[in-house]
Amino acid sequence: MSRPSEQSPAGGFRARLHTIVFEADTPAGKAFDVALLWAILFSVIAVMLESVSQVRQQYGAALHVAEWSFTVLFAVEYVLRLIAVRRPLDYARSFFGLVDLIALLPSFLSVLFPGAQTLLVVRVLRLLRVFRVLKLGHLLGQAEVLLTALRASRAKITVFLGVVLSIDVIMGAIMYMVEGEAHGFDSIPRSMYWAIVTMTTVGFGDITPKTVPGQFIASVLMVMGYGIIAVPTGIVSVELAAASRLRLDTQACPGCGAQGHDADARYCKACGTKLDFASSKPAA
Amino acid sequence: MSRPSEQSPAGGFRARLHTIVFEADTPAGKAFDVALLWAILFSVIAVMLESVSQVRQQYGAALHVAEWSFTVLFAVEYVLRLIAVRRPLDYARSFFGLVDLIALLPSFLSVLFPGAQTLLVVRVLRLLRVFRVLKLGHLLGQAEVLLTALRASRAKITVFLGVVLSIDVIMGAIMYMVEGEAHGFDSIPRSMYWAIVTMTTVGFGDITPKTVPGQFIASVLMVMGYGIIAVPTGIVSVELAAASRLRLDTQACPGCGAQGHDADARYCKACGTKLDFASSKPAA
Amino acid sequence: MSRPSEQSPAGGFRARLHTIVFEADTPAGKAFDVALLWAILFSVIAVMLESVSQVRQQYGAALHVAEWSFTVLFAVEYVLRLIAVRRPLDYARSFFGLVDLIALLPSFLSVLFPGAQTLLVVRVLRLLRVFRVLKLGHLLGQAEVLLTALRASRAKITVFLGVVLSIDVIMGAIMYMVEGEAHGFDSIPRSMYWAIVTMTTVGFGDITPKTVPGQFIASVLMVMGYGIIAVPTGIVSVELAAASRLRLDTQACPGCGAQGHDADARYCKACGTKLDFASSKPAA
Amino acid sequence: MSRPSEQSPAGGFRARLHTIVFEADTPAGKAFDVALLWAILFSVIAVMLESVSQVRQQYGAALHVAEWSFTVLFAVEYVLRLIAVRRPLDYARSFFGLVDLIALLPSFLSVLFPGAQTLLVVRVLRLLRVFRVLKLGHLLGQAEVLLTALRASRAKITVFLGVVLSIDVIMGAIMYMVEGEAHGFDSIPRSMYWAIVTMTTVGFGDITPKTVPGQFIASVLMVMGYGIIAVPTGIVSVELAAASRLRLDTQACPGCGAQGHDADARYCKACGTKLDFASSKPAA
Repeated sequence: MSRPSEQSPAGGFRARLHTIVFEADTPAGKAFDVALLWAILFSVIAVMLESVSQVRQQYGAALHVAEWSFTVLFAVEYVLRLIAVRRPLDYARSFFGLVDLIALLPSFLSVLFPGAQTLLVVRVLRLLRVFRVLKLGHLLGQAEVLLTALRASRAKITVFLGVVLSIDVIMGAIMYMVEGEAHGFDSIPRSMYWAIVTMTTVGFGDITPKTVPGQFIASVLMVMGYGIIAVPTGIVSVELAAASRLRLDTQACPGCGAQGHDADARYCKACGTKLDFASSKPAA
Repeated sequence: MSRPSEQSPAGGFRARLHTIVFEADTPAGKAFDVALLWAILFSVIAVMLESVSQVRQQYGAALHVAEWSFTVLFAVEYVLRLIAVRRPLDYARSFFGLVDLIALLPSFLSVLFPGAQTLLVVRVLRLLRVFRVLKLGHLLGQAEVLLTALRASRAKITVFLGVVLSIDVIMGAIMYMVEGEAHGFDSIPRSMYWAIVTMTTVGFGDITPKTVPGQFIASVLMVMGYGIIAVPTGIVSVELAAASRLRLDTQACPGCGAQGHDADARYCKACGTKLDFASSKPAA
Repeated sequence: MSRPSEQSPAGGFRARLHTIVFEADTPAGKAFDVALLWAILFSVIAVMLESVSQVRQQYGAALHVAEWSFTVLFAVEYVLRLIAVRRPLDYARSFFGLVDLIALLPSFLSVLFPGAQTLLVVRVLRLLRVFRVLKLGHLLGQAEVLLTALRASRAKITVFLGVVLSIDVIMGAIMYMVEGEAHGFDSIPRSMYWAIVTMTTVGFGDITPKTVPGQFIASVLMVMGYGIIAVPTGIVSVELAAASRLRLDTQACPGCGAQGHDADARYCKACGTKLDFASSKPAA
Repeated sequence: MSRPSEQSPAGGFRARLHTIVFEADTPAGKAFDVALLWAILFSVIAVMLESVSQVRQQYGAALHVAEWSFTVLFAVEYVLRLIAVRRPLDYARSFFGLVDLIALLPSFLSVLFPGAQTLLVVRVLRLLRVFRVLKLGHLLGQAEVLLTALRASRAKITVFLGVVLSIDVIMGAIMYMVEGEAHGFDSIPRSMYWAIVTMTTVGFGDITPKTVPGQFIASVLMVMGYGIIAVPTGIVSVELAAASRLRLDTQACPGCGAQGHDADARYCKACGTKLDFASSKPAA
C-alpha cells in the first residue's frame, strides 16, 4: 500500500481519495470503512441465503437485485482504488487487489457464460476483504501476538505434521489390510481419510472398524491421537507465553534504549548500564 | 444489591428482612439461603422429570402440585425481596431480579393462555438463581481467577473466533460446491454447520463427505481444527498462569522494591531485607 | 496398612507373613507381589474372554476351571492378609480390603443364587488391586506430582464443572423446546445427554439437530465447548508446572535448610542467609 | 551408521560410494538424497493408487511397470548400501536396514507365491525411509526438543495410560452389565472399545447407550475424558517449556555464574559483567 508522503498539487484529488478509500484516520475515511464493512457482510449473507433452495424460490428476484447492487458497488469501489493509488498495477497484483477482483468476476461471468453459475459461490471470498478493513482496528496487537507465536512454532509444527502424516499413511495401509473392502475401508486413501477422522478425535462414524483386530488397532490409534493432540497445544502454549512475555517488558534501558529485560534484571543485558526502574515498575 | 449501611429506626423491619433474604452472615440468613438452594434444585428436577412422557403420565398430578408449591414459594420470596430493598424498581430491573421474574411467569401464563405450555421449559432458568446463593460461598476466589484469565484473553479470543468463523464460511462454501446437494450439503448454512461440527472435532456423522476431493478437503479441515484447538488452550493457560502469579505478586520489598516473592517468603530474595507482610497474608 | 514397627517374639510368624504379603523389600515379598500381579491380570483377562459369547461356548469349561482356581487363590490370599495384620477388622474395612472382598463374593454368590450370574462382571474390580501392588514401584513419585497438581486444581475444577453442568441443563431445555420429540430430543434429560455429548466434542450422532435454529444453537454450543475445553487444560498445566517446580528446587539453605528457592534467588527467602549454591547448581 | 573416519587407499571406492549414498555434504550426496526422496514419495503414491479399484482397473499395467521400476531401483540402492559400509551385516540388521529389506520383499514374494498379494501393502513402510533422508535436514533441532520433552514425560505418561486403561476396563464392564447385548455392548472387549471411543472424545456412534442409566454413565465418562485430556496436554506443555528453556540456559556468567540469560544477552543481568559467548552463538 503506497502512502503519498509528499503531496504534489497535481495529485491533490488522488491524495484526498486515497485518504478516504485506504485510510481510517479522517471521519470520511472511517465512514467509508464502516459502510464497506456492512456492504461486505450483507453481500456474504445474500450469497448464503441464495444457496438455500426455499429462500431462492421465494425471494429469488429480490436477492438478484441485491446481488447486482453489491456487484456494481464493489466494482465502483475497485475502480476508485485503482485511481487512488499511484501504481494501479501494483495494487491490482497485490493479495487484496486479487481478492477484490476474484470476488467481482463471478457475477459478470455468469452473464457471459450461463454454465458459470456454480462459480457464484466464489463470491464468499469477499469475506476476506473484511480483514483489510479490520486491519485498522485495535485488535491488531493481539493478532500479532498470535501470529508471532505461530511463526515461532512453525518448525516444530512441520515436524509434528510430518509425523502425523506418516502415522496416517501407515495406519491407513494397516486398516485397509485388516478390515478390507467389505467394511468400508475400500482403498488406502479412504483408510487414510478414516485414520485422520479418528486421530483428530472427530469420529464421524461413516466408516468404522467391525473386526476385533480392527477395533483393537483403532483403539491404539485413538489413544495415540489423544496423546498427540497434547503436542501442538504444548508448543503453542510455550510460544504464546514467550510472545506475551516479550510484549510485557517494555521498559527501555536508560543507557541504550534496549527493551525485553526480565522482570528481575538490574543491569541492561545489552550494554551493562544499571537499570533503575525496578522499584517504579507497575504490578501488572 | 443496595446495602442499607446506615439503619433508620423506621426501616428496622426492612433491615432485618434484608439481612435474612439477601445476606448469609447470620444463622437465619444462612438457613434461608440453604433452604432456597434446595427448593431451586428440586424445582429444576421437577421440570426435568415433567418433560419425560412416562413420568408425566404416571406422576403428572403429583408434579403439578409440586410445581404450584414451588411457584407460590418463589412468588412469596420475590415479593419479600421487593419489600426488603429500598428501591424495588432497581432490584426488579437487575439481572437476578429479571431472572426471578422470568422463572415465575410461565406457570401463571400457562393458566391464562392454554397455548403457553411450551414456555414451561423456561422455568429451568431458575437454575441461574443458584449462582446468586453460591456467590456467598468459598468458591468465589477461584471463580475470580478464572474470570480474570478469561477477561484478559478476551481480545485474543475475539481474533481467534473471527478467524474460526471466516474459515467456517469459506470451507462451508467450498464443500457446498464440491459435494453438492446430493450428499447432504444442500445449502451454504448447512455446509457451515458441518464445517463447525468437523472443525471442533465433534463429528456427528449426520452429514459426511462422499467424494474423494470432499474427503481430502475434510481431512485438511480436520487437521486444521486439531491445530487450531491448541490456540485457545494456549491463550487460557498463559493467562491463568499470569492470573495466579498476580495474586501472589503484589507485595514489594521495603528495602529494594523487588516483587515476585513467594507466598511464604519472609526475606527479600534480591537484597535480603526482612519482609513484614508475611504474617498478615491469608493462607490462600 | 498398619506397619509392625516394634516386633514382639510372639508375633514372629505374623511379622514374617506381613513382610511377604504386604511388603516388597525382601526377595520373597517381591516374588509374592509379582506372582499376584500376574494372577490378577490373567484373572481379569479370563473375565473379559468369558463375556465373548463365541469364546464362552467353545472354551467355557476351561474358563470355569481357571475362574475357580483364581477364586480359591485370592480367597487364600485374603485369609493370609487377615492373619498377617494386627487388627483384621481395620484391614477388612479399608478401601483395598473391601475391594478384595467384593472381587471374591460374586463367584461364591453365583453358586448359592443361580440368578447372581450377572454379578460375575464385578470381578473386573480385581484390576484395582493392581494399584496396591504397583504402589511399591518407582512410578509413585510421578503419580504424586500428578495428584498434587489435581488436588491443587480441585476448587477451580469444581467451579468449572458447576458452570459446565448449568450450561448443560439450560442448553438441554432449549434444545428440547426447539427440536422437540420428533427429532429425538424427547425429554430434557435426553437433551442434556445430547448437550454433554456435543459439548465434550464426543459427537456420537445418535441424536442430531434437524431444524435450522437447532443446528445454529448446536453450532454455538460446539464452539463454546471447544473454548471451554481450554479451561481445565490451562488449570492442570499451571498446577503441573507449579508441582514440578516445587520438586526441582531441592537445594537447601545452608542457614535454615529451607527449600523451594527460585532459580535466581541469592538470599534464602526464609531466613535471609546468603545462598552460595547458585554457581555450583547443575543445568537441569 | 559407521563413518569411515580414516580412509585406506584400498577402500577409496567404498569411501566415495559411502559419501554419496550415506552423506549429504557433497553435491553428489545431496543429489542422491533428493532423488531418493522423490523416488520414495512416488513409490508410496503408486502403492496408494493401486489400492483404488477404479485406478487399478484402468491404469493397472502402468502401475505394474512403475512398481517394478521402483523395486529394481531400491534393490540396486540396497546393494549399493551393503557395498558402501564396512560391516554389511551390521547395516542389514540395523533398524533402517530392516525397513529397506522389508519394503523390498513383498514385490519379489508376490511373484513366487501368488497368494502373497495382500502383502503388497507392506510397501508403504518405504515411507519410513524418508526419515533417514530428512535426518540430515534442518528440522533435526526441533525434533530433538520435541523428543526431549516426550522422553522427560515418559514416566508421567505411563502412569496416565495405566489410569486410562483401568477406567476403560471398569467402564467397559459396567456398560456391558447395564446396556447388555441388545444394544451392541455384546462383550466386555467391545464395551472397552466403546469406552475408548467415548473417553478419547472420538465418538463414532456405531455403538451408543440406549437406556437412561447407560446414558447417564456415558455422560460421566465423557466429562471425565474431557477433564483427563487436560493431563497429557499439561504434562507435555510443562516439559516442552523446560526443554526450550534448557537450550538457552546453558551459559553461565563468567563474573557471577548466573544462568538463564536470554539468547541475545551480552551483559549478565545479575552483575553486569560482559558475556562473551553471545557472538559465537548460532541464531537458533
